[in-house]
Amino acid sequence: MSADNYTVAELAERFGLAFHGDGGRVIGGVGTLAGAGPGQLSFLSNSRYAAQLAATRAGVVVLREADLPACPTAALVAPDPYVAYAKIAALFERLPAAAPGVHPSAVVAPTARIGEGASIGPCCVVEDGAEIGAGAVLGPHCIVGAGCTVGAQSRLVARVTLVTRVTLGRRVLVHPGAVIGSDGFGLAFERDHWVKIPQLGGVRIGDDCEIGANTTIDRGALEDTVLEEDVRLDNQIQIAHNVHIGAHSALAGCAAVAGSAKIGRYCMIGGNAGVLGHLEVADRVTITAKSLVTHSIREPGEYSSGTPLQDNRTWRRNAARFKHLDEYARRIAALEKDSNDE
Amino acid sequence: MSADNYTVAELAERFGLAFHGDGGRVIGGVGTLAGAGPGQLSFLSNSRYAAQLAATRAGVVVLREADLPACPTAALVAPDPYVAYAKIAALFERLPAAAPGVHPSAVVAPTARIGEGASIGPCCVVEDGAEIGAGAVLGPHCIVGAGCTVGAQSRLVARVTLVTRVTLGRRVLVHPGAVIGSDGFGLAFERDHWVKIPQLGGVRIGDDCEIGANTTIDRGALEDTVLEEDVRLDNQIQIAHNVHIGAHSALAGCAAVAGSAKIGRYCMIGGNAGVLGHLEVADRVTITAKSLVTHSIREPGEYSSGTPLQDNRTWRRNAARFKHLDEYARRIAALEKDSNDE
Amino acid sequence: MSADNYTVAELAERFGLAFHGDGGRVIGGVGTLAGAGPGQLSFLSNSRYAAQLAATRAGVVVLREADLPACPTAALVAPDPYVAYAKIAALFERLPAAAPGVHPSAVVAPTARIGEGASIGPCCVVEDGAEIGAGAVLGPHCIVGAGCTVGAQSRLVARVTLVTRVTLGRRVLVHPGAVIGSDGFGLAFERDHWVKIPQLGGVRIGDDCEIGANTTIDRGALEDTVLEEDVRLDNQIQIAHNVHIGAHSALAGCAAVAGSAKIGRYCMIGGNAGVLGHLEVADRVTITAKSLVTHSIREPGEYSSGTPLQDNRTWRRNAARFKHLDEYARRIAALEKDSNDE
Repeated sequence: MSADNYTVAELAERFGLAFHGDGGRVIGGVGTLAGAGPGQLSFLSNSRYAAQLAATRAGVVVLREADLPACPTAALVAPDPYVAYAKIAALFERLPAAAPGVHPSAVVAPTARIGEGASIGPCCVVEDGAEIGAGAVLGPHCIVGAGCTVGAQSRLVARVTLVTRVTLGRRVLVHPGAVIGSDGFGLAFERDHWVKIPQLGGVRIGDDCEIGANTTIDRGALEDTVLEEDVRLDNQIQIAHNVHIGAHSALAGCAAVAGSAKIGRYCMIGGNAGVLGHLEVADRVTITAKSLVTHSIREPGEYSSGTPLQDNRTWRRNAARFKHLDEYARRIAALEKDSNDE
Repeated sequence: MSADNYTVAELAERFGLAFHGDGGRVIGGVGTLAGAGPGQLSFLSNSRYAAQLAATRAGVVVLREADLPACPTAALVAPDPYVAYAKIAALFERLPAAAPGVHPSAVVAPTARIGEGASIGPCCVVEDGAEIGAGAVLGPHCIVGAGCTVGAQSRLVARVTLVTRVTLGRRVLVHPGAVIGSDGFGLAFERDHWVKIPQLGGVRIGDDCEIGANTTIDRGALEDTVLEEDVRLDNQIQIAHNVHIGAHSALAGCAAVAGSAKIGRYCMIGGNAGVLGHLEVADRVTITAKSLVTHSIREPGEYSSGTPLQDNRTWRRNAARFKHLDEYARRIAALEKDSNDE
Repeated sequence: MSADNYTVAELAERFGLAFHGDGGRVIGGVGTLAGAGPGQLSFLSNSRYAAQLAATRAGVVVLREADLPACPTAALVAPDPYVAYAKIAALFERLPAAAPGVHPSAVVAPTARIGEGASIGPCCVVEDGAEIGAGAVLGPHCIVGAGCTVGAQSRLVARVTLVTRVTLGRRVLVHPGAVIGSDGFGLAFERDHWVKIPQLGGVRIGDDCEIGANTTIDRGALEDTVLEEDVRLDNQIQIAHNVHIGAHSALAGCAAVAGSAKIGRYCMIGGNAGVLGHLEVADRVTITAKSLVTHSIREPGEYSSGTPLQDNRTWRRNAARFKHLDEYARRIAALEKDSNDE
């Protein structure tokens, strides 16, 4: 088959899955249950979409064994269809080709070291002593500051800035507009004005991390800001100086972690959630969207703050009452006392 | 008159407005009621500024008929003075000239198509098969990824990145730092680590949309992320993969919409408000600033969440009581039962 | 001593501090109390770290007189050790050298004026009539729009965009990805679509301001957006059009200020806090993280909104009750009436 076409039987073998139905069917892409055609593969992972299975026109569907009877077409059976789908879909992803070597418009310092097969795109700037690992790809307009390191097979999609003392591990993926290694926000107040605290630490990003578009990660004041391996940051996240994030944690868009906070491993931080400075969050903690972590969390589990959405008129009435909650609590206690005294 | 000077009568004719007072007065710019001089036009739209009308030194004021008697200078009468002002003010906006053609420092792939009269600024990168419409302007440092399309008369102000499978309509205005078409945040958890879900969809932006500075719009996982026509996004907004935003909706700064959410037409989302994933928001819904939409909204109207600002000491007392609201509700019910039982 | 080595006695003299212990000890860097070695200086400012003083291996510690007895090594005595440390640490900060002159890859308009000793880095774009002050540094990929001004000794670290009518004072420090002078978000609604309000004002940034990575500051609609001197903005902050921020105020990451709001001097705005449009905030006001300022603040002090973090189950129960707060308040009042009537 051509590079982008596989039979169902080939897919089954390559990914170690059992197949049912026509193993010779040729698959050249992926799609949703509702949208895929006969030459495409789809998947059923979320029961919310089970109703779409019966009507699908997909050539083959990745699903759990339990869903086989309801499948009107060929099937690949996987214990976790979403994971299996992720791996199969990668076959059909056409990444823009990155030609090895340095684009003529790039500005690379003579003391920079460029690894074998690395690609340095148009208008990139690689400063003194920077090191780009083997097979790494810098898309257009990336800046790698003096002494920064990009690990092998990492990919800076475009317009990524590594400022100072930044070390990226291997296979790190960084999206456009991300800024890593900028000054932490450190100030001392002297009488009537601010004095800047020099930010002398760096940033260390572990293997297999992903950093979203326009996300910012500041370097440490004295020691490093650290992301352990396989940390996944969505877009527009702010990581302040000296934060430490444990391996395999994932933060959704617009989350923010203040200075010196320490987040455990396998944590999930929801969109626009925040963690105050110097706190510690245990492993396997989930924070729901827009919540603010105001104290350290010692136990795994799910945590939240905020109030529910209501129509504005009703909300206004309730919110006005929030201003007197303490008084209400006292009045309830007084009523209880009266009631008991009777 | 010169290109930037107009008599009051000329303005009246050009914009279909009635004028009162000296129609021969020459106007060469615009200003606030308090700041405009005799050669400038101002407007009165918000009654909050009505007191400033009596003292204005402006050469002419755009206002409603009802405000005519109080106007000490020439006047242009409009049913909506703010809209009329917007159109008149555009006459006096001096946009930096954009020379047609490709700046010598730009890097344009031979297979890219550049429309007639389009301007490609310094250090732009236009990749394979990209298409720039007639009269479109790419300011300095824009990146248009392989196969992306910029519609006619669109303007990428500076340092805009279109990553992959992005289609902009006509007259789209994109501000610096915006990233459109970056990977959606899709991950499957396998045993002890994350597996990335390939993001195979694109982004489609309708005619007349505006995208603010450092705003991010991810491309879809399988199908496209869509903004219909005339959607207006302020700065630092995050639009996740597969979001759909209806025509004429406007989102204020730092708002965020999570994956696969569907926002209706003519919606207004306030600053730093959020919408959770997979929800639907009806047409003509307003969300106030910093609110979190946690369930689908079926009816037009205004919706809110959050608590009011108080001095920190009072707030602390009330917030501490919030932690026991459920208990208070039970205690109130118990008191009522006692009271009824008596 | 070499440029980067100082004896304790030299440091004492240079910064006007008393020293105790071995004045001849040579210091070549700084570190934390726990991490510093014999050739490094540390400091004790926050009592939270007092326990680390006894065990420190630092060559010298900057501390308050009261902490001298507990210090096992040489000491520099300062009334505010954090301020003294900030100044001393600056000696050991190695900023990347910025060669005066214009990098050959930069695109500088013939009408731009470049001050003496200024450095224009790789791929910078300096447009018509722009003015770069003496000794200013533009790192790689900065864009200075037509007519913008960068004051003497200012530093644009990398990839900073000044769009239109922006004036930076002296010694302003701007971090990568910041966008200053983009269009304010001004729209008038006409019947069934939006009409853009031309943004004809500018941005004025005072001396000694600092602007964080990916922060956005829009230019004014008619008059200017203003930051007075020594304003400090962290990363990903959004400042809308016509905002005015008083001298020496500091805003933490992801804070946002809506259009025409006026913030006083010496204010502190916490992370992800917001201020609604057209409000006034007095001098010396502190807003805690994630709070929303919904009314003008006339008195100095600390202000907050929001609810505390709880485990999700407990929070859900309490949040559900918030929806009925108004009803509860009425029921309490009714119980009190009953109780008094008895």
